[in-house]
Amino acid sequence: MESLHECWMRLALDEARMAAEQGEIPIGAVVVRNGEMISKAHNMCEIKKSAVAHAEILAIEEASRKLGSWRLSDCTLYVTLEPCPMCTGAIINARVQKLVFAAKDPRAGACGSLINIPSYPMESHPTVEYGVMQNESLDLLRAFFAKMRQQK
Amino acid sequence: MESLHECWMRLALDEARMAAEQGEIPIGAVVVRNGEMISKAHNMCEIKKSAVAHAEILAIEEASRKLGSWRLSDCTLYVTLEPCPMCTGAIINARVQKLVFAAKDPRAGACGSLINIPSYPMESHPTVEYGVMQNESLDLLRAFFAKMRQQK
Repeated sequence: MESLHECWMRLALDEARMAAEQGEIPIGAVVVRNGEMISKAHNMCEIKKSAVAHAEILAIEEASRKLGSWRLSDCTLYVTLEPCPMCTGAIINARVQKLVFAAKDPRAGACGSLINIPSYPMESHPTVEYGVMQNESLDLLRAFFAKMRQQK
Repeated sequence: MESLHECWMRLALDEARMAAEQGEIPIGAVVVRNGEMISKAHNMCEIKKSAVAHAEILAIEEASRKLGSWRLSDCTLYVTLEPCPMCTGAIINARVQKLVFAAKDPRAGACGSLINIPSYPMESHPTVEYGVMQNESLDLLRAFFAKMRQQK
């Protein structure tokens, strides 16, 4: 039986697949509040020509627009890869209550892998869970980078 | 005689003043390339109802739009307060070559105060300078918070 976390992470993985189809690194994110999806987004750095256009940032911006507030204190953010420092900082700034990510990122993950930003004394501390559907996320990333190498 | 750093920081301080006039925490940022200003912005979290709308993020987004690239590798970013983890991460993601900030932020500064994100092994390492016109920046912040307390 699929857990609630898996249900939302599946939507984030669908977003990651959309990113790959557009030539973007396949990472997707979903913001959920009270059992309802508020926003979803995927990495769009190349299309938007912006280093800020990570899935988490776009999902947070969209959720804030929809809720009419920069405070997402009753929201959970699902993302298919451990957030980088920028996105971890955004999650903290937006007071996101809970973060659930699929796969760890040893290269740039800022929630325990390279750095552990939520462990510092900051204004907000999201609870963090990880490992939900990590194999599906890693398979997507590996397939994407294998294809990129072939095209070079 | 005013230094080049002071000249650009003065523009960032003008942006910070504009933020204060709009009821936003007075922080301003400017992106410069080859002696030319590419973008300037100030904190707009309340107006835009977005925790992502820090001066640095808005200035990076505008610079990327103008230059047509997410890579700002020949750019310097001036900002009136030490960047938070989100903005420090964005500066690294955007490959900004140099960061100059005015005042340190012991509460949330991620370039040496609370955390030192640029010291971790990441894909890009901006050189960091600070202290340029720090008193002017701190005066603006103190006046803003004093006014806020009076209004409560």
